[in-house]
Amino acid sequence: MDRTWLDDINWSPEGLVAVVVQDHATSVVLMFAYMNKAAALLTVSSGYAHYWSRSRQRLWKKGEESGNLQLVKRIRLDCDGDVLLISVEQIGGVACHTGRSSCFFRTLEGEQWSISLPVVRDPETMYSRVRGDAHD
Amino acid sequence: MDRTWLDDINWSPEGLVAVVVQDHATSVVLMFAYMNKAAALLTVSSGYAHYWSRSRQRLWKKGEESGNLQLVKRIRLDCDGDVLLISVEQIGGVACHTGRSSCFFRTLEGEQWSISLPVVRDPETMYSRVRGDAHD
Repeated sequence: MDRTWLDDINWSPEGLVAVVVQDHATSVVLMFAYMNKAAALLTVSSGYAHYWSRSRQRLWKKGEESGNLQLVKRIRLDCDGDVLLISVEQIGGVACHTGRSSCFFRTLEGEQWSISLPVVRDPETMYSRVRGDAHD
Repeated sequence: MDRTWLDDINWSPEGLVAVVVQDHATSVVLMFAYMNKAAALLTVSSGYAHYWSRSRQRLWKKGEESGNLQLVKRIRLDCDGDVLLISVEQIGGVACHTGRSSCFFRTLEGEQWSISLPVVRDPETMYSRVRGDAHD
């Protein structure tokens, strides 16, 4: 077997790579997740971001339920080979399961976290059933 | 003891939190690292980014040897509380130990990683001694 792009990734002992997800147009950091090899392959073959959910222990197509898909525009790898940076077009403008544009919606002000992004879509309308740890 | 901002972070079993580091002015993602509580406290008290080096198992002030310090402008926390996003002014314009502006200097083109950022500072001039895993 020839060496492939997957072989340049330093997979963790659990077979995962950390993924930073950034908006392609604005560079805003949207979320952070993990991929296993299957998720990385599906991401490249389909053009849509797929992740490995550690809490649910399953492959997960981002937006599979909410419709908030991520169309992948660019994939980068860091110097250590253990973090991917993907640039995406965030369909629907909502990356966070709380209904915000980005998961990074708390900002440290003095000694307190302050909510710095509004909810732009009611999470109730995003998910059809009750789920404990939905990150769809 | 009152609850502090540190208590809202979901520390890993190893006592770490993942940190995405972004340029304050351009939003370019520069690097990825980890903090323990001591590093987080030192970062806030000093205004300069401190991390926990997993490979060297020690606290590490970014740029302590190279001079490539990171002046912290903003600290954000994600929905899960297990990833920080910090916006910094990257002193010297070099975040990567390879002498590049960002650690994310490989871009997937087809099935290959392509080098997409130039070396702007010779790593030989950044570090005074031979080190196996310098990420200063």
